[in-house]
Amino acid sequence: MTRVVIIGGGGMVGQKLAGRLIREGLPGHKALTITLFDVAFPARGVSGLVQKTGNLSTPGIAQTLAAERPDIVFHLAAIVSGEAETHFSKGWDINMMSMWHLLEAFRTEHEASGGSYVPRIVFTSSIAVFGGPFPEKIDDLFLSAPQTSYGAQKAVSELMLTDFSRKGFVDGLSLRLPTICVRPGKPNLAASSFFSGIIREPLNGQKAILPVDDSVRHWHASPKSAARFLAHAAGLDTSLLNGRRALNLPGLSCTVAEQIDALRDLAGQKAVDLITPHPDPDIIKIVQGWPRDFDPARAIALGFEAESSFDQIIQTYIAEDLPTAAG
Amino acid sequence: MTRVVIIGGGGMVGQKLAGRLIREGLPGHKALTITLFDVAFPARGVSGLVQKTGNLSTPGIAQTLAAERPDIVFHLAAIVSGEAETHFSKGWDINMMSMWHLLEAFRTEHEASGGSYVPRIVFTSSIAVFGGPFPEKIDDLFLSAPQTSYGAQKAVSELMLTDFSRKGFVDGLSLRLPTICVRPGKPNLAASSFFSGIIREPLNGQKAILPVDDSVRHWHASPKSAARFLAHAAGLDTSLLNGRRALNLPGLSCTVAEQIDALRDLAGQKAVDLITPHPDPDIIKIVQGWPRDFDPARAIALGFEAESSFDQIIQTYIAEDLPTAAG
Repeated sequence: MTRVVIIGGGGMVGQKLAGRLIREGLPGHKALTITLFDVAFPARGVSGLVQKTGNLSTPGIAQTLAAERPDIVFHLAAIVSGEAETHFSKGWDINMMSMWHLLEAFRTEHEASGGSYVPRIVFTSSIAVFGGPFPEKIDDLFLSAPQTSYGAQKAVSELMLTDFSRKGFVDGLSLRLPTICVRPGKPNLAASSFFSGIIREPLNGQKAILPVDDSVRHWHASPKSAARFLAHAAGLDTSLLNGRRALNLPGLSCTVAEQIDALRDLAGQKAVDLITPHPDPDIIKIVQGWPRDFDPARAIALGFEAESSFDQIIQTYIAEDLPTAAG
Repeated sequence: MTRVVIIGGGGMVGQKLAGRLIREGLPGHKALTITLFDVAFPARGVSGLVQKTGNLSTPGIAQTLAAERPDIVFHLAAIVSGEAETHFSKGWDINMMSMWHLLEAFRTEHEASGGSYVPRIVFTSSIAVFGGPFPEKIDDLFLSAPQTSYGAQKAVSELMLTDFSRKGFVDGLSLRLPTICVRPGKPNLAASSFFSGIIREPLNGQKAILPVDDSVRHWHASPKSAARFLAHAAGLDTSLLNGRRALNLPGLSCTVAEQIDALRDLAGQKAVDLITPHPDPDIIKIVQGWPRDFDPARAIALGFEAESSFDQIIQTYIAEDLPTAAG
């Protein structure tokens, strides 16, 4: 029996991952016991799993989670980019210091086990670790010079996880997820929220605001791909990473105009007409600092896969998340 | 009166910097009051300055240092590479967590001042933030993927300093110093200690051990250059950094064989005969993970200068640090 914990298991990606693990398991593991940890869980979320409610910044929580000695830890919990920018201390506390306490707690368990306990830790980092100016495509050797607190916190967490792994206390890797799109449910505080909103709201017959110019190019993958990335990372032979345990993942580079074209293809001009441009200087400024395109050769060679068209990304939303009947 | 504090002011580079500031001041500042902070001070060190003895990891020390509201902070204190590798917790505590507490203490003073207090912080990072495989020359866009705890701690500190600076709480920059050579005095616990030892010991008529092959290529600057880098950074217009506040500094790339040739030029074969090869697998392994050469275009454009030959580096040692008469 393989013990899995999903920290941040109440969030959208955590729920997608939990659903995938229940349906498909993990290659090489006969059976999984899955625990979800988060500050809160959705009312109609994935059911039948152990749910633990708590705040990762509470003293002692990291030790409690580590004491269960999970074999595989997915660490997805974070204050999102917009919130981390507004609430400086909260962002560093949750996004950085909690990572430190978690790693220290796992190191304590590693040492208490005489060195036999070495959990796999899969951490969701972000392309926000990169800051401009960028090359047209970011390759696997491009520097991490974030221009947001969120990006800095993710970059710091990557470095810590890599060093604890190099020392053999844990066996971790960091996945720099593309912006996840189309997110189901409601807008969140991430500055990237509109990338989902301009597709999701029109598909649900609702109006959407476009706060940036439609020439903005960005890097996307679906929630389904995010769950697949995480599951793939759980089984990856980390010796293939040669000590560089932060990976730029595959995704799809497209402009907002191309996103809207794909929406038109699938849902007609009526859906597109629900999008109203309304420039927001704060969001424009944040998004200007974001990457547009990648050449994620390492991750592709390691078997990670994403969508190849924005039509596929919208179709994934329609198949998995579009509210039926409720409209 | 400009208030300057040198954290790590008892160390070799801190003492060189203090001496330079006493002799030459800082451009644009009429007079300096200089405070040195360290765990200990050399018996025959720079005199006539305020010396504060303390440990940066002691709770409350960061607040005490920040409460003085220094205008310019040089943060040089660190557990060196070899020690940080052996003493994992101590390294992260001093090299990372102390940086966090310092930055938080300066942010508190910034806020208490109504935002008017924004200290310049010059932090000594290291080329250990880079890990192989390397290109033949590392440029300013190459990723920071350290392969030692020391390098990871420096890289994390850079990210924190950059984010606190971006938010306007402090005005900091990180200098990725080349390996400083020739260090005066005794060997230290840094894995790089031998680079100085093979020059210093023979010049003093003593035997030296060479633990690596003489084909090893590495990146050096003198203690005098280190002090000049720091003084130059104190007055730099940081808006020129465009948010990328960690700089690869100029230095000299040469092989150990070239170092030994320069020693021969200046002190004869008799000095070279005092060097005994004695391979040390631990040091060989660490040094293999270190950069060999750089193209530090940004720092050169910003006015940083280093030596252009290893002869110059040895001559600097002879002029500034060779014990006279005592031999």
